[in-house]
Amino acid sequence: MRYRDAGVDVGRADAIKARIARAVDSTWGEGVQPLPGGFAGVVSWPGGGRTGPGDASLVAATLDGVGSKLELARAAGRLGEAASDLVYHCANDLLVHGARPLAFLDYVAQARLEPAVVLELVEGLARACREVGAVLLGGETAEMPDTYRPGVADLVGCMIGWLSGEQLLDGRAARAGDVVLGLASSGLHTNGYTLARRVLEGSGLGLGDPLPGGGGERVGEALLEAHRWYGRTLAPVLETRGVHALAHVTGGGLAGNLVRVLPDGCRARIDPRAWPRPPLFRWLIEAGDIPEDDARATFNLGIGMAVVCASADAGRLAGTLRAGGETVHVIGDVAAGARGVEWSEAP
Amino acid sequence: MRYRDAGVDVGRADAIKARIARAVDSTWGEGVQPLPGGFAGVVSWPGGGRTGPGDASLVAATLDGVGSKLELARAAGRLGEAASDLVYHCANDLLVHGARPLAFLDYVAQARLEPAVVLELVEGLARACREVGAVLLGGETAEMPDTYRPGVADLVGCMIGWLSGEQLLDGRAARAGDVVLGLASSGLHTNGYTLARRVLEGSGLGLGDPLPGGGGERVGEALLEAHRWYGRTLAPVLETRGVHALAHVTGGGLAGNLVRVLPDGCRARIDPRAWPRPPLFRWLIEAGDIPEDDARATFNLGIGMAVVCASADAGRLAGTLRAGGETVHVIGDVAAGARGVEWSEAP
Repeated sequence: MRYRDAGVDVGRADAIKARIARAVDSTWGEGVQPLPGGFAGVVSWPGGGRTGPGDASLVAATLDGVGSKLELARAAGRLGEAASDLVYHCANDLLVHGARPLAFLDYVAQARLEPAVVLELVEGLARACREVGAVLLGGETAEMPDTYRPGVADLVGCMIGWLSGEQLLDGRAARAGDVVLGLASSGLHTNGYTLARRVLEGSGLGLGDPLPGGGGERVGEALLEAHRWYGRTLAPVLETRGVHALAHVTGGGLAGNLVRVLPDGCRARIDPRAWPRPPLFRWLIEAGDIPEDDARATFNLGIGMAVVCASADAGRLAGTLRAGGETVHVIGDVAAGARGVEWSEAP
Repeated sequence: MRYRDAGVDVGRADAIKARIARAVDSTWGEGVQPLPGGFAGVVSWPGGGRTGPGDASLVAATLDGVGSKLELARAAGRLGEAASDLVYHCANDLLVHGARPLAFLDYVAQARLEPAVVLELVEGLARACREVGAVLLGGETAEMPDTYRPGVADLVGCMIGWLSGEQLLDGRAARAGDVVLGLASSGLHTNGYTLARRVLEGSGLGLGDPLPGGGGERVGEALLEAHRWYGRTLAPVLETRGVHALAHVTGGGLAGNLVRVLPDGCRARIDPRAWPRPPLFRWLIEAGDIPEDDARATFNLGIGMAVVCASADAGRLAGTLRAGGETVHVIGDVAAGARGVEWSEAP
């Protein structure tokens, strides 16, 4: 099963994104920070000019939808958790540029608003906002019977964050010789659900069935595990300036996201045997007969955040992150070469 | 035809909003500005402490969908203009709290992304962003075949703005004796389209037919007229401090929005004969057999922005706004009494 068979054509979406860039650029002035392929946008706060350490002189913002994880969560009666995941996702997207959460706004749309659904979603958003330190500043509900299929919902959120200029991670700091650490994901996070749902439907398994190879975990639990928020451990580490780049592994997979934070002249080499592939991904790939290349471009495969740091700092960083509760693997390094990410295969 | 018959139950949506307020409040700290029923949220910029005039110490943000105007615009081949309208709508929502646009982020979702649709939408957003002075800072596209009906789209946007504490319009300044000015709308703006589309369908008229009573204007032109952006004329006026409150007339109509910016002990009295009702609204009400109360709670009926000011300032303000290109009517006043908005009927 290829990803486009499941209803999402990543390649086509990327082509659109390139073409709309010109329109977007027409609105940009000098206050916008250049973040090629950024996870969030960053723009100067008006009337800034403050330059002291820690001064909040830049605004970061990101906007995303929760995607089709919402439908799976609904079937499992866990809508609120999927809403929380959207907050964690957005907060991670800010974090990789060095920004801290400030505020979150949400949009819930259905053909007909179901009060119980909206409440559960907003309560899930609020829980996660408290955890990441964002104010739930606004929300909008919409009933659009001609736009949405009956009984489903879409949930969109925008997170606003802040940082100082010296905290900005802008994809220029990585260099040859750096080490790439991988922080374990907790599951699919919020990407690849359209494909995962198709695999589930074709597998004959239900959400309550044991996950093959999963040591007793149920399929539904594994598929809906919360999106991990890395700020609790990573934000303090960013203050020590040892981190050159962070990549949040979302749509596009590890390589597709890591390449976005590498400068020209740097190529990352990732060893796929450097971390254990979790049972959920092994089952999805096998049950869905998903080619390895597609799996790598769709799923995080067990690594939710990549941390690029100087080789001399890697041990200390990994130790600090492990002490904070992360599972950390050395998954690759950075070498000189054409900008890109390559997977080293078995020797 | 009642508004709920057309697929949108305003009363039910309001009930949901009240219940979710508790969850939202759980995330609020002291940085959040109390704006009861605000059009946008406002929160302190971290590490503020600057207090000079014009200093940007507050962040304002609002998020909204373009709603079903998008479908009508699509049928008329004017998608880009509907996208622009979302930007104008959000910018007006910031303006009524005294904030200026800084950045905009968008979300486009379809069952299957159509490149031409996405491009037209983003180009429309970019045009309007340039006009209101916002950076188009980020965007996200989503393909969700299980969520969206085939061939339709949803467009959601979040606008971030800035202001100083002394610029904040927080709904506390209006007082008995104030005058209410009404600034003419250009049409439906972005509200009431679900109902308007039902009326259109039942009327037997097409988008290319002349609007009854419209002096040669076509139905499609009248229905899709751009959402007026009031910042060009109103933002300079706000600097002179003569304005006590602004209400952007969106869903809920003039009364439903004006009441949101009145303090306790103030009631506004609106004279519906104080401005001419545009032919579009007269036709919608007649063709749809819409009760007057429903029309007032659904459509702007010709007034897109209400300006509350001291009676001594009203003449000067109206003159300045007219010189800037607005059509201005004195539509009512503010009296002491239980907080609310009442319509004066013919004597």
